[in-house]
Amino acid sequence: MDNYIVTIAREYGSGGRLIGKELAKELDIAFYDRELIVLAAKESGLAEEFVQKMEYKRTISFINNLYMTGYELPVSEKIFLAQCKVIRQVAEEGSCVIVGRCADYVLRDVPNCIRVFVHAPMEERIKRIREVYGEEQPNLEDFIRKQDKNRASYYNYYTHGKWGKAQNYHLCIDSSIGIPASVRVIKELVAEYTKR
Amino acid sequence: MDNYIVTIAREYGSGGRLIGKELAKELDIAFYDRELIVLAAKESGLAEEFVQKMEYKRTISFINNLYMTGYELPVSEKIFLAQCKVIRQVAEEGSCVIVGRCADYVLRDVPNCIRVFVHAPMEERIKRIREVYGEEQPNLEDFIRKQDKNRASYYNYYTHGKWGKAQNYHLCIDSSIGIPASVRVIKELVAEYTKR
Repeated sequence: MDNYIVTIAREYGSGGRLIGKELAKELDIAFYDRELIVLAAKESGLAEEFVQKMEYKRTISFINNLYMTGYELPVSEKIFLAQCKVIRQVAEEGSCVIVGRCADYVLRDVPNCIRVFVHAPMEERIKRIREVYGEEQPNLEDFIRKQDKNRASYYNYYTHGKWGKAQNYHLCIDSSIGIPASVRVIKELVAEYTKR
Repeated sequence: MDNYIVTIAREYGSGGRLIGKELAKELDIAFYDRELIVLAAKESGLAEEFVQKMEYKRTISFINNLYMTGYELPVSEKIFLAQCKVIRQVAEEGSCVIVGRCADYVLRDVPNCIRVFVHAPMEERIKRIREVYGEEQPNLEDFIRKQDKNRASYYNYYTHGKWGKAQNYHLCIDSSIGIPASVRVIKELVAEYTKR
């Protein structure tokens, strides 16, 4: 098989980003996450910091609107389109792992695209974001649910699909077996796809 | 690890039953599907044929109602309870694969229970039920959707959960990579769980 792409969508705090990073390392292929934002920022001609702030935001504020002319796309749509372009570009350049950014949807017509969704029970996610991310919100469960809601709403808005629906993905995995174990299971799936 | 149980829920025509059977064979553990019905039938004191006919039926007909006294449970509930008992029994006896029958829900408090959901794109399922099951309905897509609906409604009624929701399972897999490949990926997951 030529190039292949693994897209990873993930619940907040499930360790999906880390799984993607480890997977890319073990498969010796490129890894894209925030790096993609940087590339997209350059692409759209918008400041990197602004692009990061706009991440997962669908609506545009009144202030942002002031900068728009009647002929322009809203800033959030501009960023999304720039990201789509970057995702398609890096996917053409070589095998890679892409975390988030609706990459599964953007690459829906690419045959060598393996779509993965990572989730975990709430108690595992609370533990992770407290211990690993050092997050200290008063109500972590609410905070996590809000992050998931943002991801789902961003995905559903741009793709007209349903974020986290099992049938959208080749593999959905509960990461509570641990990061290395999850990586090994996904690697097995990638091996099955790439040997076809 | 001592005994472990793999439960497999599956979309109609996804090959989930076959995957479960192959998996059990490769892991050299017991496999339960229709066999479970036979055991449940004996347990409930109802005729095997009748139990099979009642499969996935929640509601009871007027005729069946005639046989009920005010103190009796509906026949469908009786069968479900008998199946639950059998599922818990076989899970205690030794490692096994159980296909369908809400086994993931029935064994929700069993720590060594690995929950799997198998799905496949519609065109793959149409192909499978035509070629493998020899099904020749005029509109196979409608037929498949109806079977899925029955499974979902049966599961959701008895478990108050949501059939096919990614977060309910340790692994959801698209079987379009093939039966042997799907079995190998699930085997990798089982290996990760059992070596903990």
